[in-house]
Amino acid sequence: MTEPRYTDLVQTLPANVPFVGPEEQERARGAPFRARLGANESLFGPSPAAVKAMQAEALETWKYGDPSSHDLRAALAAGIGCDVENILVGEGIDGLLGNLVRLLVAPGDAVVTSDGAYPTFNYHVAGFGGALHKVPYRDDHEDPAALLTKAKEVDAKLVYLANPDNPMGSWHSGSDIRTALDDLPEGCLLLLDEAYIEFAPEGTAAAIDADDPRVIKMRTFSKAYGMAGARIGYAIGARGLIRSFDKIRNHFGMNRMAQAGALAAFDDAAWLLHVQGEVARARDRIALIAQENGLRALPSATNFVAVDCGADGAFASAVLEALVARGVFVRKPFVAPQDRCIRISCGRPQDLDVLAEVLPEALSAARG
Amino acid sequence: MTEPRYTDLVQTLPANVPFVGPEEQERARGAPFRARLGANESLFGPSPAAVKAMQAEALETWKYGDPSSHDLRAALAAGIGCDVENILVGEGIDGLLGNLVRLLVAPGDAVVTSDGAYPTFNYHVAGFGGALHKVPYRDDHEDPAALLTKAKEVDAKLVYLANPDNPMGSWHSGSDIRTALDDLPEGCLLLLDEAYIEFAPEGTAAAIDADDPRVIKMRTFSKAYGMAGARIGYAIGARGLIRSFDKIRNHFGMNRMAQAGALAAFDDAAWLLHVQGEVARARDRIALIAQENGLRALPSATNFVAVDCGADGAFASAVLEALVARGVFVRKPFVAPQDRCIRISCGRPQDLDVLAEVLPEALSAARG
Repeated sequence: MTEPRYTDLVQTLPANVPFVGPEEQERARGAPFRARLGANESLFGPSPAAVKAMQAEALETWKYGDPSSHDLRAALAAGIGCDVENILVGEGIDGLLGNLVRLLVAPGDAVVTSDGAYPTFNYHVAGFGGALHKVPYRDDHEDPAALLTKAKEVDAKLVYLANPDNPMGSWHSGSDIRTALDDLPEGCLLLLDEAYIEFAPEGTAAAIDADDPRVIKMRTFSKAYGMAGARIGYAIGARGLIRSFDKIRNHFGMNRMAQAGALAAFDDAAWLLHVQGEVARARDRIALIAQENGLRALPSATNFVAVDCGADGAFASAVLEALVARGVFVRKPFVAPQDRCIRISCGRPQDLDVLAEVLPEALSAARG
Repeated sequence: MTEPRYTDLVQTLPANVPFVGPEEQERARGAPFRARLGANESLFGPSPAAVKAMQAEALETWKYGDPSSHDLRAALAAGIGCDVENILVGEGIDGLLGNLVRLLVAPGDAVVTSDGAYPTFNYHVAGFGGALHKVPYRDDHEDPAALLTKAKEVDAKLVYLANPDNPMGSWHSGSDIRTALDDLPEGCLLLLDEAYIEFAPEGTAAAIDADDPRVIKMRTFSKAYGMAGARIGYAIGARGLIRSFDKIRNHFGMNRMAQAGALAAFDDAAWLLHVQGEVARARDRIALIAQENGLRALPSATNFVAVDCGADGAFASAVLEALVARGVFVRKPFVAPQDRCIRISCGRPQDLDVLAEVLPEALSAARG
């Protein structure tokens, strides 16, 4: 009996996965984490109104979700100030990224990103056979000018820029992004990942017309809205581009509870404000804990903080492993010199108490 | 400003979508449907235990779902009698289908299905550039022998067979499927879509070893378990094939509430039995309503009934339109001669009361 005949492309793909989930780490260590601070989830939770909407909608799960996510798109468009036709709802930014890459990237097509930026984007590019070109970070920031220069050099169809950035938490002003756009080569789409935009200072979101065919923005309910497990995000882009997703997307792919929850969450401005305040407090506390341990926290416009462990990537990895072994789930950048940091998500006071308790031991263990 | 540069393949894809959702039809007609009997959803709802589990999990949606769906896969494997490594959980059968096609089908690769079988499968094959070859139904049944003969003729990598079938509700015995397998060509994978298997007579599920590399089965929580809006299904297959999905799937794509609900639903055998009973009663009632209107209901091993309108496809379409105009959402087969039928999902007594009230008028209108 023979094996199925995989495509040539699939045969070249590695079997490793972008991220191991915390549950798998918990099964491996035989105990739950004491503080779940590794995936930039919102420990402050979703809006109570969103929880209520999801709970009510649980009774309606016998029905498929509306494949056009009409009501949610209408609310998003009204809130953002664009047309419904400029909005696409999808299964989180990860799902939207996969479909965008599929629309544009055939085997060998050039794509540009920063070396050390979002691995799941790279995973999708590899998965469709794209040729990924990377430029280094500059002073722990993604480097828009270098990205666009590289895009021109390799004739890229797509260039990825997260603003604010993950994993470093750094950011550019929206006006700088707009200015950089002047250098975007013809036929190259800028994918602007704004997963963390709600945590960033005023003026970080680039004011770009939704119908500008050069840019697609992606946003999510996973971070500030605290609904990572609901898997719902959205894209803002030119209507022709948005419509083109209909050629390939999983039309009935949206979870009804996620649709209902996102609609309620987007409407709950007070909860968003509350979360923003909690995140700002948690960033300060993480910086303080870092300082008390002789480490330096980098400035952050996100719901996490990159903490410079003061040595090389191997040392930061040792700190990370020691934290994980002591029940604190964190992650870290993969690429030097950013890999000298560990990345700690903002948590509630009780989560950060655990961090404060464990970090000195973890540093000792890593040094010992 | 130029458009993004789509792949050559994407440029050839049509903009039309497999199915228009009932919500869009409701918006078009300006009123909700009185009876939602078109998408083979379970109007009997999910297990109360599943609802409770989803509602509890709504509070936990700040966390991503476990990317390995470990607990659910363990429960499914135990229930089915295979290993965890034989089970893949995904975003409904639609999501699993897309990924399976992506693993196997490069542009030009041959795929075989029945003419008039599941359009979303065809959509995925087209979406990856596959060459779709179709064989006709035989006496309103999919024709396994013809499918496998065609697979051999065109050197297919993948052949699709739904048992029981959608949209006709017909079925083959599991032993007939097993016997047909002897003729499966080397290097061709049989995709056995068992979305409706829980409604079928004993012996319909083909007893195929989960590790048999020739077959992948797909099942869902959308039908008998009443969780279409949760978007969760699973595949059973050889561990190498199951593992290969890790190369391309959206690892963090599962909704946590769906995972929790499915686990509770799979454990609630009493609710499944209840739904099976309700569905059997509803099938009989639909057959009776058809008979009272001079129409013939086809035998069904699913939660829907194909009703032969007694003339051609145009007439059945007129009946369908007249039902929709009167607030009854139904769908119908696309291909002759099956398109002489309309397809009516099993509903509660109050839903079928509406059908009984409206069908005579709809038939008059279609004849008038």
